[in-house]
Amino acid sequence: MSQVYDRVALIGLGLIASSMFWAMKRAGLAGEVTGYARSAETRDTAREIGLCDRVCDSMAEAVKDADLVVLCVPVGAMGAVAAEIAPALKPGATISDVGSVKAEVIAAVAPHLPENVHFVPAHPLAGTEHSGPRSGFAELFDERWTLIVPMENSDRGAVGRVNALWQGMGAFTEEMDAEHHDLVLAVTSHAPHLIAYTMVGVADDLRRVTDTEVIKYSAAGFRDFTRIAASDPTMWRDVFLNNKDATLEILGRFTEELFALQRAIRTGDGDHLHAYFTRTRAVRRGIIEAGQDTDAPDFGRAKKG
Amino acid sequence: MSQVYDRVALIGLGLIASSMFWAMKRAGLAGEVTGYARSAETRDTAREIGLCDRVCDSMAEAVKDADLVVLCVPVGAMGAVAAEIAPALKPGATISDVGSVKAEVIAAVAPHLPENVHFVPAHPLAGTEHSGPRSGFAELFDERWTLIVPMENSDRGAVGRVNALWQGMGAFTEEMDAEHHDLVLAVTSHAPHLIAYTMVGVADDLRRVTDTEVIKYSAAGFRDFTRIAASDPTMWRDVFLNNKDATLEILGRFTEELFALQRAIRTGDGDHLHAYFTRTRAVRRGIIEAGQDTDAPDFGRAKKG
Repeated sequence: MSQVYDRVALIGLGLIASSMFWAMKRAGLAGEVTGYARSAETRDTAREIGLCDRVCDSMAEAVKDADLVVLCVPVGAMGAVAAEIAPALKPGATISDVGSVKAEVIAAVAPHLPENVHFVPAHPLAGTEHSGPRSGFAELFDERWTLIVPMENSDRGAVGRVNALWQGMGAFTEEMDAEHHDLVLAVTSHAPHLIAYTMVGVADDLRRVTDTEVIKYSAAGFRDFTRIAASDPTMWRDVFLNNKDATLEILGRFTEELFALQRAIRTGDGDHLHAYFTRTRAVRRGIIEAGQDTDAPDFGRAKKG
Repeated sequence: MSQVYDRVALIGLGLIASSMFWAMKRAGLAGEVTGYARSAETRDTAREIGLCDRVCDSMAEAVKDADLVVLCVPVGAMGAVAAEIAPALKPGATISDVGSVKAEVIAAVAPHLPENVHFVPAHPLAGTEHSGPRSGFAELFDERWTLIVPMENSDRGAVGRVNALWQGMGAFTEEMDAEHHDLVLAVTSHAPHLIAYTMVGVADDLRRVTDTEVIKYSAAGFRDFTRIAASDPTMWRDVFLNNKDATLEILGRFTEELFALQRAIRTGDGDHLHAYFTRTRAVRRGIIEAGQDTDAPDFGRAKKG
């Protein structure tokens, strides 16, 4: 893999930025990588563990002369960061981000950017329940999708280099428009996350079922829910507030269906339940046949690590 | 491991029964194991793959002289099976089951059993999304919990042998009363399953998001949901119909909380969201600290098998 950018700046040094640094280094994709984080403690940690070639004490210093600047901050902070770095950007530079929401991020960031830079939003569909500068690792993006969400007038050369960077970090890539991205993510990620957060909160509330029992006997499903619900609170707060419409639409459909199933349970309508469960089973079969997941029976049997 | 029973009869030859057979054989826990399934096709498959030492064409033949009879049929079929086998049971035999619901199963089965047999309900908290006689394997119960749910007047010797059998098949065991069992399972398994079924159904319904996209981009959460939602429709229909009260209670609490979070999204109440997500993250930390799961960051990064 050859170098894609001479200078890359990472703004925000959490799970995604730190994984990007290690993945870029693994493949030699960038000359120098600078980094900035708002908290002095994070910057100290980054220096301690060798995260970034140079950790800077200001955003302006980090983005100076950078050919690519990647905004790796919570979605709700993107606009303010864009406003702050705008005057320091190198003409011709590419600005990208890794936010889980695209339409609102574009609306918040684009107005601040000067006309002589290229804005190419992106979203790596990868993560863990951990966060912070120590949580990154080079393999995070391997064989995972990164969605590139170019603006209508995005320079195709700039888009191509962002694409090459992500592929170089191990990801599969695909282009998608912002509205469609936000709807797909509401279904596949945002609504499921909110549902998992909710179920874990309910279990925690139930004093009649001790937490120990809930954990001990959570063979199927619930333990995965707790893992999802351990994700970064600030990041997810911002995701929901910024992908409000699509998330609420999906949750509305979800509660509608859930009520129909609850009603079937209450009235003893076994046929309704059976038909519904047969249909969802077919969805899973479709996934296996499409080669998108394995048929190995590992559900509910994961050994303790 | 030494033999616990001379003769064991398995009624119903699906995932659990077939796994029990292989696990009993692995450890030499039973002399002869007989099996019966309602469908001739299942019995033929069992004979073909060597599932059970002897596959019988009637329940009466299968349970004749058995020291332990295990009902491995859907929860809704337990009562009818108990009525049919009752006249053929050996005096002093132990009857057990593997149903995911206990109070309703006990209410359906106990009245049919003669006074000279011991009824010791049980529930192995293990499974996969696969079903049928070919889906079993000896390791299914290894290091998983099996809950033993004795009746108030259960013979302690009979309970001890059921316990020894499950431990011999690799399981951890614990005793619990039926009502508490049904509430714990409603929280840890039944409500999460219904929620996963619902979310997968909603995704399938949304024509604007093609199925391929839903699958391809389901990095986090949703793919696990599809796995859960592929479980046996008949088994799960019966679980919900027979653990109706506890499941509806938990779902009621769940929708209440979900509405509060939806409202926070709609009104832009970031503090409410952040506080909720911080609390659920603490639940996950409690699990790690209790040693009940690993801290390894594998969420969302599973490789294709």
